Formats: sequence, C-alpha cells, structure tokens
Amino acid sequence: MLTALELIGIAAFAASGALAAVRSRLDVFGVIVLALTTALGGGTIRDVLLDVTPPTALVTWPYLAVAGGTGLLVFLFHPTVAKLRRSVLVLDAVGLGLFVTGGTNTALALGAPPYAACLVGMTTGIGGGALRDVLLREIPLVLRREIYAVAALAGAVIVALGDHLGFPPEPVAVTGSVVIMGLRILALWRGWNAPTAPKLDGV
Amino acid sequence: MLTALELIGIAAFAASGALAAVRSRLDVFGVIVLALTTALGGGTIRDVLLDVTPPTALVTWPYLAVAGGTGLLVFLFHPTVAKLRRSVLVLDAVGLGLFVTGGTNTALALGAPPYAACLVGMTTGIGGGALRDVLLREIPLVLRREIYAVAALAGAVIVALGDHLGFPPEPVAVTGSVVIMGLRILALWRGWNAPTAPKLDGV
Amino acid sequence: MLTALELIGIAAFAASGALAAVRSRLDVFGVIVLALTTALGGGTIRDVLLDVTPPTALVTWPYLAVAGGTGLLVFLFHPTVAKLRRSVLVLDAVGLGLFVTGGTNTALALGAPPYAACLVGMTTGIGGGALRDVLLREIPLVLRREIYAVAALAGAVIVALGDHLGFPPEPVAVTGSVVIMGLRILALWRGWNAPTAPKLDGV
Repeated sequence: MLTALELIGIAAFAASGALAAVRSRLDVFGVIVLALTTALGGGTIRDVLLDVTPPTALVTWPYLAVAGGTGLLVFLFHPTVAKLRRSVLVLDAVGLGLFVTGGTNTALALGAPPYAACLVGMTTGIGGGALRDVLLREIPLVLRREIYAVAALAGAVIVALGDHLGFPPEPVAVTGSVVIMGLRILALWRGWNAPTAPKLDGV
Repeated sequence: MLTALELIGIAAFAASGALAAVRSRLDVFGVIVLALTTALGGGTIRDVLLDVTPPTALVTWPYLAVAGGTGLLVFLFHPTVAKLRRSVLVLDAVGLGLFVTGGTNTALALGAPPYAACLVGMTTGIGGGALRDVLLREIPLVLRREIYAVAALAGAVIVALGDHLGFPPEPVAVTGSVVIMGLRILALWRGWNAPTAPKLDGV
Repeated sequence: MLTALELIGIAAFAASGALAAVRSRLDVFGVIVLALTTALGGGTIRDVLLDVTPPTALVTWPYLAVAGGTGLLVFLFHPTVAKLRRSVLVLDAVGLGLFVTGGTNTALALGAPPYAACLVGMTTGIGGGALRDVLLREIPLVLRREIYAVAALAGAVIVALGDHLGFPPEPVAVTGSVVIMGLRILALWRGWNAPTAPKLDGV
C-alpha cells in the first residue's frame, strides 16, 4: 500500500512540475524534463546527502515511468488537468507527506541523528518543488508559504520522535504523513478565503 | 583523439558560459567563474551521482586550465568571439555529444542499469548549461529548445543499446556523439529559418 | 578559538541570508529556511564533493541552532539589524575567510591535490551565498563583485601553499582568513566611495 501511495506521490509532484512548465509555455520535452526533475529531485538530493549511490530515483524504472508518463499526460491533456488544480494540490500534499516521512525514515535507518534525519526528510519533500521553481525563475513555494515548511517539519519530527520512543515505523510514518497532508490541505482551504487576489493565486 | 575532443568540448562549454556572462555584463572574474561552472558543472554532477570522489573535473588540472583559460580569452576578445557565435554553438553541440556519451559510458562502467546510465549521461551533458542559465536568471535552454533534450537522449540510448548488444564502446560512443551533434546542428540550421525574431535569438 | 570564530562565521552567513529574505518580504519560516541554507549550504556542497556523509553541517546541532536562531533573531529585530548592515558585511567577510580556509584544509586533509583543494575551499565559502541569491532570483554576488572570488582564491592559495611548504596549518589558516577578510573589507570601504548610486548599494 505504501508503494502505491509512493507512486501516487511521484505522480502528484510530476503533475505539479508539468503544469508549471505548461504555464511557462515550455514544449513537450521541457514539460517532461521538469516533471522528472520535480518528482525525482528531492529523492536524488536525499540520496546524495546520505551517500546512496547511484540514487534510488535513477535506478528504479517505475519511478521514471510514472514521472515521465505523468508529465506527458499533463502536456497532452492540460486543459483538463488545469481544472483539476485542487486535486493536484491535494495530491501534492500527499506527495509531500510521503516524501518527508520516507526521507526521514531512510536517514534514520542509515544512522543519522534525529535532527539530521528531520532535515534530510524535509529536504526530500521540499527539494523537488524548489528545483522546479528555481528552473522556472520563481522564488520557491517553501520560502513563500509558511505552512509548507512547518507542515514538513511537523511530520519529520513525528517520525523522528516515534523512532526515538521505539514505536513501530509504519503507523508512525502514516501518522506523520497524515499530519503533513492535513496541515497543507487546511492551509489550502484557509488560502481560498485569504485576502489575496484570486487571480494571483497560482500554483 | 577522444581526449583532444573532450578538451574541445570543455572549451566550447566554457566559451558558451563566458559569452553569456559577458552579455550579462559580469566582470572578468564573474566571466571566469561562469566559464568554469558551465564547463565542469555537468561532469561534477555526474561524479556526485555516481560517487566518484573527489569529482574528476576538480582534480584534472588540464580541464581547469582549458576552462579557465577559455573564459579569460572570451573576456579579452569577446567582440571577436561574438562574431563566432555559430562556431561556438557548433562546438557546444560537439561538447554535448561527447559529454552525454562519455557520461553514459562512465555510468555503465560503474554498474548502473541502462536507463539510469542514460539519465546520468544526459545530466552530464545538460547540467553545466543549466547551471549557467540558472545563475544568470534564465530558464535553462534544455527546457526551452526541444531538440536539446531529444538529441541528448538519442545519443545516450545509442550508447546504452550498443553496450547491451556487446558492441565495442569506442565506435558506439563516436556514433552517439555524431548523432547528437548532427541533431543539434540540424536544429540550429532549422532555427535560423524559424519565425522567431532574429534579435531575440540569443545564445 | 577557531570553533568560536566558526560559529561567528555561520551566524554571519545566516544573518546575511535572513536579511536578504526579509528584504524579499518572506515570512518567518522562509527567513529561517534561507538563513539555514546560506549558513550551511557551502559546507554541505563541500562534504558532498568530498564524500563526507552525512554532511557535517547536518549532523552538528550547534551549527543548526546558531544558524536557525540567528535567522529568527534577524526576523524579529530586522529594523535594528538593518542598521547593522556594515557589521553584517564585516561578519560575512569573517565567515568567508574561515569557510574558505577551513574548506581548503578539509580537502587537503582528505588527499585532494592543491588546485582541487583551492576549488573546494572557494566553493565552501561561496556556495551558501550563491544558493541564497539563486533562491531569491538574483545573480550571485560572487559573479557581480570581482573582489569576492579573488579574495577567496587568495586565501585558498595561501592555505594550499602553506601546506605544500610544510608550514603548521593553524597560523597558515589564520593568515589566509585575515587576507580574505582584509581584501573584502577593503573592497567594501572602496565600494562606499565608488560612483555607484548609494540607494542601489544593497547587500
């Protein structure tokens, strides 16, 4: 089940990157490259930091297929996908939750101390989106939306705390993921009512 | 012969970075820093992904000398070099060809599966130029010109396929490089006739 | 003493990142994220290049505490800190000096040849600020202010030369750091009198 959710997370990040690329008027290959970068960038940074070589994201073909295929589908059907913006943001929250908790657990399993594992986990979840925004010349979302970094931190701390207390990792990871998703989705709900101009409320 | 071509590729990438820096009105040291980053960035990313430590580009002094020297020459003589823009773009295609095939071969030799080797090879060829554009606040060329990523992918696939079929690596690498260079140069020819405003047709 | 200075350098880099984030109107978490990135980014790049895993910056909690705490203090008191701009730039010079010489020494100790150690040392000192500027969509300072790269190079060469001649590392590192700080502070003094519009003379 976690693997299926992981692939959903990759697809969600890939879709967010591809949609951003379509909005920047990139061609089909630019869209696919950005989908791959957004979906696999965070995990690649994690593996480089933890010395997992070659990075898991590059040698696991289902990751590549899902990320690239999602990018292609978004390019082909983006008028439809754009209408699914809420769904994409929700899936992005799912991806953030799974990537942060998965990255934190990976770091803990490789012997990193808890605070380092939290940092690595946050980087795993945030890195792909930051690469997407830098490549498209935008200030990364994580720097502009406070609830993004806070949600990631909360989930990472839950995983590290659960590990410290000897709790079984699976339910702890699920709890951390749900907290991240909940905080992000709450923030999106709150954002819909916030006094920012709706027209400027882009991804 | 391949080593000579490799140094030509480094010089070409360094020249592209230095010219872009001159156009952004950077001073001489900014130009040299950007020449080094463009020429050596892709190989450094490759070595980090494949855990070759320290990165080859940093410990091979001819690479540093050629990249830095090219940057200095471009700064000193850029009115002349700017007239050589076509030659630089052709040399950039040569560099892309050699870097992609070389990066793919390096990854295969270190045991990466074929699809991962293709990704690493493409990253080797594309990474330096992407760093150049991000540092100068431009959307990377690879995201804006479709034939760039496609050409790199075609060459990488040829190398991985040749390796899978047991062909000798040298002629396969030359074939892959020639395909990349040919596609890029064809795209440049086609681009000269494309309906984009010539004044906006910068590097 | 060197450790105290190292923490001062981290605090100075964190303050420069946080101030830049405040000026870009980021919220408190964006400010802290940018403070951490600026203060710890250069050392993390160094450790990735030299295969020190996990990166020292991520597993040394005083670094994290000082960088994050400085970011928070800057956010809370930035009207005051902004008046301390000269002090921050001076502290940034201190950080640059210590990071470049420390990074060069680390690379030499791990067996890198002298010219590679200089490159790694310069990257250690320059990397964090470059990440800060890229994330805020600015062309990195090192590309725009010639004395930045030159000062870093001078300090790195002093350390590598001292190592080559068998001098004891501590006084050599102090000398290199003082040279970097002196060159940067001289450049700042000179810049105050240079014919650039004072209003545009931002960090």
